[in-house]
Amino acid sequence: MKEITVGIIGAGRIGKVHAESISLHIPGARIKTIADIYMNDEISTWAKNLGIENTTKDYKEIMNDPEIDAVLICSSTDTHARFTQEAAAAGKNIFCEKPLDPDIETIKETLSVVEKAGVKFQIGFNRRFDHNFRAVKNAVMNGKVGEPHIIRITSRDPAPPNPEYVKVSGGIFMDMTIHDFDMARYLSGSEIDEVYVQGAVLVDPEIGKAGDIDTAVITLKFKNGAIGVIDNSRQAVYGYDQRAEVFGSKGAVETSNDRPSTAVVKTADGIKSDNPLYFFLERYMASFTQEMKEFFEAVREDGETPVGGLDALRPVQIAKAAGESLRSGLPVKVEY
Amino acid sequence: MKEITVGIIGAGRIGKVHAESISLHIPGARIKTIADIYMNDEISTWAKNLGIENTTKDYKEIMNDPEIDAVLICSSTDTHARFTQEAAAAGKNIFCEKPLDPDIETIKETLSVVEKAGVKFQIGFNRRFDHNFRAVKNAVMNGKVGEPHIIRITSRDPAPPNPEYVKVSGGIFMDMTIHDFDMARYLSGSEIDEVYVQGAVLVDPEIGKAGDIDTAVITLKFKNGAIGVIDNSRQAVYGYDQRAEVFGSKGAVETSNDRPSTAVVKTADGIKSDNPLYFFLERYMASFTQEMKEFFEAVREDGETPVGGLDALRPVQIAKAAGESLRSGLPVKVEY
Amino acid sequence: MKEITVGIIGAGRIGKVHAESISLHIPGARIKTIADIYMNDEISTWAKNLGIENTTKDYKEIMNDPEIDAVLICSSTDTHARFTQEAAAAGKNIFCEKPLDPDIETIKETLSVVEKAGVKFQIGFNRRFDHNFRAVKNAVMNGKVGEPHIIRITSRDPAPPNPEYVKVSGGIFMDMTIHDFDMARYLSGSEIDEVYVQGAVLVDPEIGKAGDIDTAVITLKFKNGAIGVIDNSRQAVYGYDQRAEVFGSKGAVETSNDRPSTAVVKTADGIKSDNPLYFFLERYMASFTQEMKEFFEAVREDGETPVGGLDALRPVQIAKAAGESLRSGLPVKVEY
Amino acid sequence: MKEITVGIIGAGRIGKVHAESISLHIPGARIKTIADIYMNDEISTWAKNLGIENTTKDYKEIMNDPEIDAVLICSSTDTHARFTQEAAAAGKNIFCEKPLDPDIETIKETLSVVEKAGVKFQIGFNRRFDHNFRAVKNAVMNGKVGEPHIIRITSRDPAPPNPEYVKVSGGIFMDMTIHDFDMARYLSGSEIDEVYVQGAVLVDPEIGKAGDIDTAVITLKFKNGAIGVIDNSRQAVYGYDQRAEVFGSKGAVETSNDRPSTAVVKTADGIKSDNPLYFFLERYMASFTQEMKEFFEAVREDGETPVGGLDALRPVQIAKAAGESLRSGLPVKVEY
Repeated sequence: MKEITVGIIGAGRIGKVHAESISLHIPGARIKTIADIYMNDEISTWAKNLGIENTTKDYKEIMNDPEIDAVLICSSTDTHARFTQEAAAAGKNIFCEKPLDPDIETIKETLSVVEKAGVKFQIGFNRRFDHNFRAVKNAVMNGKVGEPHIIRITSRDPAPPNPEYVKVSGGIFMDMTIHDFDMARYLSGSEIDEVYVQGAVLVDPEIGKAGDIDTAVITLKFKNGAIGVIDNSRQAVYGYDQRAEVFGSKGAVETSNDRPSTAVVKTADGIKSDNPLYFFLERYMASFTQEMKEFFEAVREDGETPVGGLDALRPVQIAKAAGESLRSGLPVKVEY
Repeated sequence: MKEITVGIIGAGRIGKVHAESISLHIPGARIKTIADIYMNDEISTWAKNLGIENTTKDYKEIMNDPEIDAVLICSSTDTHARFTQEAAAAGKNIFCEKPLDPDIETIKETLSVVEKAGVKFQIGFNRRFDHNFRAVKNAVMNGKVGEPHIIRITSRDPAPPNPEYVKVSGGIFMDMTIHDFDMARYLSGSEIDEVYVQGAVLVDPEIGKAGDIDTAVITLKFKNGAIGVIDNSRQAVYGYDQRAEVFGSKGAVETSNDRPSTAVVKTADGIKSDNPLYFFLERYMASFTQEMKEFFEAVREDGETPVGGLDALRPVQIAKAAGESLRSGLPVKVEY
Repeated sequence: MKEITVGIIGAGRIGKVHAESISLHIPGARIKTIADIYMNDEISTWAKNLGIENTTKDYKEIMNDPEIDAVLICSSTDTHARFTQEAAAAGKNIFCEKPLDPDIETIKETLSVVEKAGVKFQIGFNRRFDHNFRAVKNAVMNGKVGEPHIIRITSRDPAPPNPEYVKVSGGIFMDMTIHDFDMARYLSGSEIDEVYVQGAVLVDPEIGKAGDIDTAVITLKFKNGAIGVIDNSRQAVYGYDQRAEVFGSKGAVETSNDRPSTAVVKTADGIKSDNPLYFFLERYMASFTQEMKEFFEAVREDGETPVGGLDALRPVQIAKAAGESLRSGLPVKVEY
Repeated sequence: MKEITVGIIGAGRIGKVHAESISLHIPGARIKTIADIYMNDEISTWAKNLGIENTTKDYKEIMNDPEIDAVLICSSTDTHARFTQEAAAAGKNIFCEKPLDPDIETIKETLSVVEKAGVKFQIGFNRRFDHNFRAVKNAVMNGKVGEPHIIRITSRDPAPPNPEYVKVSGGIFMDMTIHDFDMARYLSGSEIDEVYVQGAVLVDPEIGKAGDIDTAVITLKFKNGAIGVIDNSRQAVYGYDQRAEVFGSKGAVETSNDRPSTAVVKTADGIKSDNPLYFFLERYMASFTQEMKEFFEAVREDGETPVGGLDALRPVQIAKAAGESLRSGLPVKVEY
C-alpha cells in the first residue's frame, strides 16, 4: 500500500481530532508535519507522542514540502479559502474544514483553482459519516422509503455559545444550521430551491444583542418536490439532540439519539434512561474517523471524494438565503 | 345524580361512536332520541339494542322535546351552525362536531346566539382528550419543559381520501390540519399569530386535480414567541402517524404512536415491531369516550366545557390563513 | 343470531367485570340473572342499570332456570367445583374462574362430570386473550421463532397481598404463578415435565410468617425439550410487570409492558417515561372482554372453548409440583 | 507520569486487541516486547507498525527483561497459571486472560504465589468494564434499586462454536457462562451459594456428541438471599444477545443490546430496527480498552486491581458446581 504523507495546518481541537484519527486508525497515512501559528511546547509534546515528525508555526513548511501529498486545513475559517488555493497550487490533495468561506464568490473562485489543479478536495461535513445518518441515507438509497416527501431534521445544541463567539460566528445559519443544510441535501439527494425561516431569540437575550437568533424552524422546498423542515435550538438542556426522519411514498426512516448506555432504571418515580451524549466530539467521534478514512481512500484510489466542491458551496448559498428570509420575513429562492 | 336526557342528531359513524360511549360509559346520561334523515331499520335496530327509546328522521323532535337537556350535533358539516343555533334557541346544551362552520362570520354569529342563550357549548376536538396528547399537555402545564420554544406536530393519515371527498372536504387545512391547529393551540397555551405553508401534491395527482394538496409543512408563529411546525401527509403507509413534541427552556416532552401490541420479533432479518394503529376510530376511541365524559360533567356541574366557542372559531381562522399562504406562497397573519 | 341467556354466580369484582363486558360488548348474549349470597341494594342497582333482569341471593335460581344457556361461576374458589358440577348436571355451558379447585382429584372428578354432560367448559385464564401475549403466541405459531428453546416469563405484582389473604390464598404458586404456568404451556405449546423452584421471602417477613414466599425463580423443563423460567415477585414498586419472551431456533419474540401513555419527558435529569399500568384490571381489561367474546362464540358456534378442561387441571398439577420443589429444595417431576 | 514498560505473551486475537488498546489509548504505557510461539512476519510487521520494539517466539525474553514492569498473559489457557507464576516470581505485575486455570487447586496455588510476590494481578473479565453493565452496577451501588432480589442475565452467542472447539473448550460453563457467573457476582455484590442447571442440546446435535450442551437456564442462590437466573444459548440468530436486569426492593435496572445504528425503518410491513452487534470484539471493544486503562492505573497508582484473585477463582468454582448440577440433575452447593 502506497503511503500518503500528510501535513496538518491548525492544531486546535479539530486538528487534533484528525491527527489522532489518522495516527490510530488510518494505516498507510503518515503525518509528517503539523503547523499552528500558536505552536507551543504542549502541542509539540502531544505531536511527538503521536509520532508526528515536525511541528512548526509556519504553514508554508507544509506547502513547500514536496514529500507531502495531502493537506488538512484545520485553521481558522478566514484562512480556509486562501490555504486551499495555496495547497491546490502546490499540487496537494486537500481536506478542508467547513466552511470553505463565508463569501460565495470566494468559494467559487477557490473551487475553480482546485479544479484547475486537478487535486482532490473534500469539505468537512462529518455528519455524513455518522452511523445513524448514514443508515438513514442507505435506507433512502435502497428504496426503503420510496420517493421522499418530507425530510425532518432536529438539530439542537446542548448549550448556547458565548455571545462573544456569536458575534464572529457568522450567525446561526452559517455556524450551526449549515450542517443541517448539508444533511438535508445528503438525505434528500436533491438541491434546495427555496428557504423560509421563522426564528426567535428564546434561549439567551445576549445572543439577540449580538445580532443573532437562537431558535429557528426552517422550511425547505427541494427541487425534486419534497419538503424539508429543520428545527434548531442553541440549548437542549437534556443533551445534544441530533435526529432525522425521511418520510416517503413507501414508508419512513428515522433515527434517535445515541446514549452513554442502554440502561433503564425503573422505580416508583417512573422509568428513566440516559440523556443523549452531550458533547459533539463524543457524539460524532466515529464520524470524524470515518471521514478521514474515506478521504484517504479517495486520495489513494484516485477516486471521488465523498463530499466535494459543490458540497462546500451549496450550504453557504442556502445559509445566505436563510439569513435573507429571516431579515425579510419572506420565503427566499436560493441563488445558484 | 341528576339524569341528563340526550338527543343525537346524525347516526353516521361519529354519531354512533358517541351514542355507544354514552350508553356504555356515561352513567347518568340517557339517550332518548336519535335523529337521522336517512334513518332506516338497521339504524333503528342498532339504536334499540343500545336502549335508545326513539328513532326519527326529523331532528325537530329533539329540538322540540322539553325533556331533552343536551343535543349532540353529528350531522353533516353544512348543518352544524344552523342546528347549533336552533338548539341554543331551544335552551339545550350543545356538543357539536367540528367544524362548526367553514365560514367565519357564520361561526361568530352562531357563537353569539349560543352565548346569549346561556347554554353549554363544546366543539368536537377529541384529540385533546387523548392519553398521549394529554400527557404532553400536563407535562407542559406542570412546568416540566419550562417555557415552550418549539412545538412539533406530526399528523399523517394512513391512506388518502377519495378525490370525490376531497372536492367537498374544504381542503386539507379545514379537513385534516384543523385538528393540528387546535392541538398547537392546546399544547402551546398560546394563540397563533402567523402561518406559512409549504405544500405539495406528492401522494395522489387526483388530489391535485381536485384542487387540494396532500403533503404540507406548516410553520406557526405563536403570540407567546414560540415557533410551531406541523407536518402533514395524506398517506403514511405504515399507519396513522400522530405525534407531538413540545421543546422548551427546561426540556422537552414527546409522544410516539400507539401500537396493537408491544411484541417485538427478533430474527436474522432485523428487529420488528407493530405498526401504529391504522384506523382513527381505533386509535382515538378512548378519547371520544373521555370527550363525552367531560361534556356531561360540565353540563351536570354547570362548569366550563373543556373545548369552547373560541376553540371552534380559532382553528378555522388559522385554516383560512393557511389556505391563503398556500395560494400566495407567503407567510400570512391570522386575522382574529 | 341466536341469543344466549346467561346467569352469573358471584357479583364480586370479577363477576362485575364479566357482566359489564357482556352487556357492553357481546351482542347476542343477555344476562338474565345474577346471584350473590351477599346480594344487596347497591349490587341490585348496578345490575338494573346494566339491564340485568333478576338479582338473587340464591344461585339455584340460575341452575333451575331452563331459559339460561350459560353460567359464569365467579363465586369464591371453594364453590367452583361444586357449582361447575351442578351447572353441568343442569345442562348449562360453563365459564368458571380459575382455579377450578385446589384439589387435583376434585378437578378430575368435576371435569369428568362436565365431559359426560357434554356442555362447554372454559376456565378463566384471561391472559391468553391479552394483546401482547397473543402476539407472542401468534409469532410462535407462525413459525417466526422456529423451534422454541427458552421461554422466559416475568410476572411481578405491584404490591404484596395482605398477610391475612396470604394464609387463605393457597400460596404464591396457586394464587399468582398459576397464571404463569398456564402462560408457559400456552406459549410453548408443550406440557411441563419437571419444575425446580428457588424461592425466598424478601418483600415482607409477614408473608413468610404466613407460611408463604414472595419471590421466586422457577425453572421448567418442557416435554418438547425446551426450557422455561418464570420470575415472580409480590412487589415491583414501579408497577405491574408482565412480560414474556420466547427464544428459538429462528429468533425470538418479546413483549414489554403497557403504559398509560407513550409520552417521554426529557430534562437535564434524564429521559423519563411512564411506569407500567399498575392495576391488573386496567392492564387486563381488554383480555377479560375478549375472553367473554370467545366463550360465547364457542357456545354459539358449538365450537371448542379456547381454554378447556385440561387447562384447568394442568396448572394446578404444576403448582403442586412447585410447592413440593420449594419444600424439598429439589427438582420435581409433574405428576399427570 | 512514570512510564510503564509492558510485555505481552500471546499475539492471537485478544493479544492484538490489548496491544492496540495500549498503543492507542494508554498514555504512559509502552509495549516493549511481544512474544508468541507462532511469531511470524505478519505479526512482526503489525507489531512494528504499532511501535512495539521486539518480537520473539520466546516468552522468557519478557520474563527475564528487568525493564518490563507488567506482563499481559494472552496465550492459550493451559499456559495461564504457569506464566502467571513465572511472572510473579520475576516480580512483574500481571494481567491474565480468563480463566486462570480450569483446575481449582492450580488456581489457588497460583494465587498464593502471586500474593507472596506482592505483585498486581488482574483477571480478564472485560464485561465488568462495559458501559451497559457498569451502568447497571452503578445503579445498584447507588441504591437505585434497593436490596437486590432477582438478578437476570441473558447471554446468547450469535453462532455456535465448531464442535472440535467444543471438545477442548472445557464445556459451556467454563467457556461461556463463566462470564455470566462473574457478572452475577459483580452485579449482586454477593457470592453464589448454590447452583441448579437445566440444560439441553437444542442448537446443534454435534455439540451434544462432543459431550456438551448448547442451551441452559441456570438458577443461582446468592449468600445475601437474592436469586439469580442466567439463560444461555449458543445461537441467537439475530445477533449477540447480552442483557442484564437487577430487580430489587426499590425498583429495577435493565439493559438492552447495543446496535449499529438507531435507525428505524417504518413500512407497511412493520417497524424495523437494527439487530444487536453480532461480533463480540465489536460489541465489547470499548470494555477491553477500559479494562487496560484500569489495570495500568492500578499498577501506576499502586492501587487495587478492579478484578483480582478471588475473581479468578470463584467463577471456576461455580462452573464446576454447574457441571455437577447438569450431571446429577440436582442443585449443587458451590464449594469454596
